[in-house]
Amino acid sequence: MQPTVRTHPVLIGGRWRPSLAPPGDLHAFDPARGTPLEERYPISGWPDLEAALSAAQAAAERLGQLPAEARAEFLEGYALRLEANRERLVATAAQETGLPLEPRLNSNELPRTVDQLRQAARAVRERTWTQPVLDTARNLRALRGPLGGAVLVFGPNNFPLAFNAVSGSDFAGAVAAGNPVIAKGHPLHPATTRALAELALEALLGSGLPAATLQLVYHFPPELTPALVAHPAVACVSFTGSRAAGLAIKAAADRAHKPFYAELSSVNPVFVLPGALEERSERIADEFLASCTTGSGQLCTNPGLVILPSGPVGERFAALARERFERQAPGVLLSAAGLRSLEAAVQGLIAAGATLLTGGTRRQPGWRYSNTLLRVNARAFLEAPEAFQTEAFGPVSLLVFADPQRMPEVARALEGNLTGTIYAHSGERDDALHAALSALLRPKVGRLANDHMPTSARVSAAMQHGGPFPATTHPGFTAVGIPASITRFTALQCYDNWRDSRLPPELQDANPLGIWRWVEGVWTREGVNGRAQSRSK
Amino acid sequence: MQPTVRTHPVLIGGRWRPSLAPPGDLHAFDPARGTPLEERYPISGWPDLEAALSAAQAAAERLGQLPAEARAEFLEGYALRLEANRERLVATAAQETGLPLEPRLNSNELPRTVDQLRQAARAVRERTWTQPVLDTARNLRALRGPLGGAVLVFGPNNFPLAFNAVSGSDFAGAVAAGNPVIAKGHPLHPATTRALAELALEALLGSGLPAATLQLVYHFPPELTPALVAHPAVACVSFTGSRAAGLAIKAAADRAHKPFYAELSSVNPVFVLPGALEERSERIADEFLASCTTGSGQLCTNPGLVILPSGPVGERFAALARERFERQAPGVLLSAAGLRSLEAAVQGLIAAGATLLTGGTRRQPGWRYSNTLLRVNARAFLEAPEAFQTEAFGPVSLLVFADPQRMPEVARALEGNLTGTIYAHSGERDDALHAALSALLRPKVGRLANDHMPTSARVSAAMQHGGPFPATTHPGFTAVGIPASITRFTALQCYDNWRDSRLPPELQDANPLGIWRWVEGVWTREGVNGRAQSRSK
Repeated sequence: MQPTVRTHPVLIGGRWRPSLAPPGDLHAFDPARGTPLEERYPISGWPDLEAALSAAQAAAERLGQLPAEARAEFLEGYALRLEANRERLVATAAQETGLPLEPRLNSNELPRTVDQLRQAARAVRERTWTQPVLDTARNLRALRGPLGGAVLVFGPNNFPLAFNAVSGSDFAGAVAAGNPVIAKGHPLHPATTRALAELALEALLGSGLPAATLQLVYHFPPELTPALVAHPAVACVSFTGSRAAGLAIKAAADRAHKPFYAELSSVNPVFVLPGALEERSERIADEFLASCTTGSGQLCTNPGLVILPSGPVGERFAALARERFERQAPGVLLSAAGLRSLEAAVQGLIAAGATLLTGGTRRQPGWRYSNTLLRVNARAFLEAPEAFQTEAFGPVSLLVFADPQRMPEVARALEGNLTGTIYAHSGERDDALHAALSALLRPKVGRLANDHMPTSARVSAAMQHGGPFPATTHPGFTAVGIPASITRFTALQCYDNWRDSRLPPELQDANPLGIWRWVEGVWTREGVNGRAQSRSK
Repeated sequence: MQPTVRTHPVLIGGRWRPSLAPPGDLHAFDPARGTPLEERYPISGWPDLEAALSAAQAAAERLGQLPAEARAEFLEGYALRLEANRERLVATAAQETGLPLEPRLNSNELPRTVDQLRQAARAVRERTWTQPVLDTARNLRALRGPLGGAVLVFGPNNFPLAFNAVSGSDFAGAVAAGNPVIAKGHPLHPATTRALAELALEALLGSGLPAATLQLVYHFPPELTPALVAHPAVACVSFTGSRAAGLAIKAAADRAHKPFYAELSSVNPVFVLPGALEERSERIADEFLASCTTGSGQLCTNPGLVILPSGPVGERFAALARERFERQAPGVLLSAAGLRSLEAAVQGLIAAGATLLTGGTRRQPGWRYSNTLLRVNARAFLEAPEAFQTEAFGPVSLLVFADPQRMPEVARALEGNLTGTIYAHSGERDDALHAALSALLRPKVGRLANDHMPTSARVSAAMQHGGPFPATTHPGFTAVGIPASITRFTALQCYDNWRDSRLPPELQDANPLGIWRWVEGVWTREGVNGRAQSRSK
């Protein structure tokens, strides 16, 4: 298959150049209308990937030699350019994704992307992600440093800016830590990705970093993944997307013994306790509607599973929720394939024994799906807990009706999730159940929220946007939040018995950068007075 | 195959009990004589493993509910018992391993093991490993907590105490973080492992922790590994040992999507620069001998590759080293299998083109191998760098003679290692070469040492005893050093919008434990004044 039309260039080695012998091409769609967009982008073959690998390897070596401040300047320059081009960027993203301009893209996602880059820049300047440790008695010093190779970033479909492989959290983290990025943009929003990468390249050229700090390809045949991942220039792989796609890439990373970070699927169980419903049913129903339909429910923290008390209080809440779900216009989904997956997931839930409360139908124009609620009782849920934990990526939630005393059993049957949520009475009425559920949920989720819906992953130092499998593949890491998301892309590096003048400034006695360091069991920004004897005699 | 003799019990569910239907048994050897020891230990089958898994799962749930202080008490009680039983422990270990009582076992390894447990206890009390982060404006708080399942620890052959699966670094780290351990003792020192586990159980019973915090089996058929690793009660796997064995377990952990930590092979390149040799050849040769023959060279940080300047200065050093290697009596190796592997590794180096300078022969009695040096020039090394980086686990080192100008090429050809070392002139004479080599070695090694040999992994907060593959399987973690080695066994857990009184004490406003916390970009032991508004409206 040869491309029949002129395609956009790829970004490799610091310049935009035609794709080398691409095995095909792709185009985006307007999901609100379900119509194809005109611009064509190459599907890269091995020649592009090989060129990207070799450019990235050279960039990794140079990045290791340059002062970290150049990375901060780049990240800040990039953030400024995103702001300056805001209107164009969000318009492009809106067209390719069907996500609303307001508030989503213009007032939330773009500012969040900008803020994330600036937080990463600040972390670079303050070196928070380096976690310097000094043991002066033994003259041992350690910090986190770059990996010495590229981070291969696979961007998702649902955040064209804040998780884009050329501008999102993984990108910011990888570059902040001093690694070049080989980005695979998501094929559903290539124009957005290209526009972002153009600004990234401009910012790179003004920063003193290697221009090849970022390589961008739009897509490549999945059969090239194993060779790409195994290439010595790739130090680490990061992925955000579906479980099936992520696990296929993980298998390649595992075989090549490369660190792999994935953010996969999550149903984000929400337990609504009786006292909370007696107190504020309507408000919780409002919050549920907003959370489950934001971004047409295509959020990794979508409340896909809501556990309610059986009986009148729970039934009343279900009625309130249903009324709201029916009143709200159906949103646009990202793709025809996403629509098909969503239909299949809902059919799967019904086949497992759930009942449709409302929704469950395609809508027009373009790719739309009605806001959907299903229900099941706890007994049925507990008989096939895996089937009922299938992620339905869209405005869909399964209500599980359980006697409050059986809620802990439901909690026990849950898989790993990004989030878990408990709504409780504002006084003490739900305390015992809250305590029991918290203890059970704590090791199963990354973020355990109280009294608000889970769709609230903030770029905060205290965020955990990760969790046990199948939410991610390692419960110790987060994809969002600075500096923690940066440390994913670092190696722990010890300097043993070095002369002070040869040490990186982060570890020198005088602490010339004035950064926080862990020195003999104390966090301090002071320098070390006097220097321990060298162990070399 | 049925056991024909009475075997020692296994430790499962808090008591010593006979192995259930063991498919076989094993016994240790006296390596100094090459003779079998009498005591018999079971090779566990699935019934033992299943019982261990179920006991560990129950212990994990209880551990999550108990205050962390109970773990500190256990670790301290265990340390005291190790000290009180020191003579018996080191005598048993010496008999099973052939390692010298003095200074190795009695004055180094036992005290190190005790110190490591005490450091872990202190880390528990001070919560350093929890890394609490407070974002009070958003009422988001995060810390590191237990995994909610067992850590499966595979202990190595070469440190019967300090890395034993029931007393070593992985054990201390896993328990400090609040996880139960399923330990697979190494089959070469079962009596040592049993003696340690007896003391561990005593200490557990006195601490208030679940008695089933530790399960011990001595061995199991490798074909059971996949089912064991994939069992839901196992949260994480850690391994120290050979590359082949480690990668087989890793494949099982990868398929089950479990975090896996391994410390595998390393040749620990040592670059000796011309200025250093001109200045202190004899002293470096002394250090080289000591480092390469300690523990009969069976250390993961053994200097297995020494890069010397070609020409008279390097030749003179080689002669000094050879003289020392020949003068020193050959040490005892841990096992007949180890001796055969070592012979095969030396033969492999010779087959690749290295020349034997001295040694290369079996010695008597028992399992001994002469102190061995081989040599090769840089050109030959660079033609087959992988072959020359085969780990020879014993008192063996390969000298690589290189024109100093070509040393960077050798550095470029190196695989990942635990350590890299540069010996340089005490003044400025080697500065340029030191800088070039440091830059190349930095991303390839965990610990980069200057002016002393690499066999010096200390239990320090600033240690990195890890490194890029094939030294380990993730360059961001360390197997030694507290608190960093503990954090391997933790999940990152966020508390989102919790009421202060429901939070774990580590995250409460008042900081009742007085621990170090990262609060709004500052490390502090102070409490938070006033409490931010809850986001729940």
